[in-house]
Amino acid sequence: MAKRFSPETYQQGILSGDRVLLSRAITLVESKLPADQELAQQVIERVLPFAGKSVRIGITGVPGVGKSTFIEAFGNYLLQEQDKKLAVLAIDPTSQRSGGSILGDKTRMELLSTNPRAYIRPSPAGKSLGGVAKSTRETIILCEAAGFDAIIVETVGVGQSETAVHAMVDFFLLLMLAGAGDELQGIKRGIMEMADAIAITKADGTNMIKAKAAKAEYQNALHLYPPAASGWLPRVSVCSALQQTGLDTIWQTIMDYLQRTRQNGFFEKKRHEQNLQWMYEAVRQGLEESFYVHTQVRELLPRIVQEVKAGRKSAFAAAHELLRLV
Amino acid sequence: MAKRFSPETYQQGILSGDRVLLSRAITLVESKLPADQELAQQVIERVLPFAGKSVRIGITGVPGVGKSTFIEAFGNYLLQEQDKKLAVLAIDPTSQRSGGSILGDKTRMELLSTNPRAYIRPSPAGKSLGGVAKSTRETIILCEAAGFDAIIVETVGVGQSETAVHAMVDFFLLLMLAGAGDELQGIKRGIMEMADAIAITKADGTNMIKAKAAKAEYQNALHLYPPAASGWLPRVSVCSALQQTGLDTIWQTIMDYLQRTRQNGFFEKKRHEQNLQWMYEAVRQGLEESFYVHTQVRELLPRIVQEVKAGRKSAFAAAHELLRLV
Repeated sequence: MAKRFSPETYQQGILSGDRVLLSRAITLVESKLPADQELAQQVIERVLPFAGKSVRIGITGVPGVGKSTFIEAFGNYLLQEQDKKLAVLAIDPTSQRSGGSILGDKTRMELLSTNPRAYIRPSPAGKSLGGVAKSTRETIILCEAAGFDAIIVETVGVGQSETAVHAMVDFFLLLMLAGAGDELQGIKRGIMEMADAIAITKADGTNMIKAKAAKAEYQNALHLYPPAASGWLPRVSVCSALQQTGLDTIWQTIMDYLQRTRQNGFFEKKRHEQNLQWMYEAVRQGLEESFYVHTQVRELLPRIVQEVKAGRKSAFAAAHELLRLV
Repeated sequence: MAKRFSPETYQQGILSGDRVLLSRAITLVESKLPADQELAQQVIERVLPFAGKSVRIGITGVPGVGKSTFIEAFGNYLLQEQDKKLAVLAIDPTSQRSGGSILGDKTRMELLSTNPRAYIRPSPAGKSLGGVAKSTRETIILCEAAGFDAIIVETVGVGQSETAVHAMVDFFLLLMLAGAGDELQGIKRGIMEMADAIAITKADGTNMIKAKAAKAEYQNALHLYPPAASGWLPRVSVCSALQQTGLDTIWQTIMDYLQRTRQNGFFEKKRHEQNLQWMYEAVRQGLEESFYVHTQVRELLPRIVQEVKAGRKSAFAAAHELLRLV
């Protein structure tokens, strides 16, 4: 690995918008070495007062929905029409193994990746979901301190990672294809009810009629959903990355959401709760990590798992037995 | 508290269907005394081989949906028409404080509570959700060993308890009122996507037309949902506890679900996974309980919580600081 700098150097570099030092700091955050982790925490503590001022947008959708193309188009809209500085992060731990398109294939975002006011960072390799989520959350802080005022966190829509993204963003956008049949295959249950907005992608050419019909259907379905704690009623719109249409509507939806939730206090409350949630989650991870590496636990666990699965031992007796070992 | 018996006595009593000993064993399960917990685990280990043979049905719905009335009617249908032995448990930790109807007011289930083939047990008082969930899950095992082959777990539909119930039942039924507006107030997001079936209650008299319209609407909306891992497409039906109609349709739906998921292996897989999930959850609870009672953690936590909420300290630095104390 490249050489380390002092916490001050990272801090000054990040705050002055130095992309090389930003990248180096993110690499620290992603590192598994205890010394790097220690240094990363020092850097984060230093830049924390300068973070928090972006709008954090989670974007999900199954493979094939056109996620990279959408982010490329929407990102360029934010840069050019809304004068934003944009960071795009990814949170799918399997992306690089599966060869999926999730930011791995940067050529899909040619315009964004060459724009000096955009910063693209793929998902860190070789980490568990918990690890990726932690890295991504800390990377948000670093990017905000570096002056990026719009952060997109991309996730793949088929795994456990949506809940993690939902817990780190202000606004959650679900991309869907027109037609409510096969395209839904693979989306996990519960994700639709997390969405603050749904955008029907590829609404162009002969697809337009189908997209508008899908919009009406989903808008209708969303009325049957229970209202969110935010007081916000999720909206559905159509868009085309190809024709660059509908992007302004989505941005307006996000603006309306921010205005509404800032007014009713939900925005700040949610951020506070997210901060706490991540703290308790990190404590939990820390406790479990040191528990499950314990030699006797590792020796006993496989047998106990079998007995519990088969219903020969009760879950609580098994837990009790394991906890007694440490 | 009443005197304790030997594990053998509880075991023999439960297996022979002795309701007094069953109730005593459940009281042990609900007790916070370590000696009672120890004894409870011994009883559970003894009866575990005789458990697992019931159908476990979770039922939820907001106050006003007619949950108690429905369970009374559906329970009597199961006893009389399906020759079942039925246990009704509740999992809402707040029920007894809020004075809600959740099994607290037994007079609402007059027929069930006087039927010798039914067993009604309200939610244990003064416990956290985690505590109630653990007790309820262990109570399911005791009731199954006592010969009850249908278990209903009731929850109130507005809190965190639905996820816990979902993790301990085979089939999850959501009760809804006709009309998709105000009645949804209070239902938590995500619950609709957990449901294996929705029943529109109070479908009688002048309400019938509205109920049928609601059925069509929800059935339509469910088609827009992603398919469940079970391969099951949730169904919607109407029912009336007053006129005792639609109960057979709901039972048939549950039977179809069981047949389908037993055939494709999902039923057994889900039970295995639920067993494991409860074990890991119990380990987590055990680790967190002993961590957060630690004197230094208790002293430092309030200040750290404030700093994290306000964004002055990062969630991970805070967790690290706390973990270092122990």
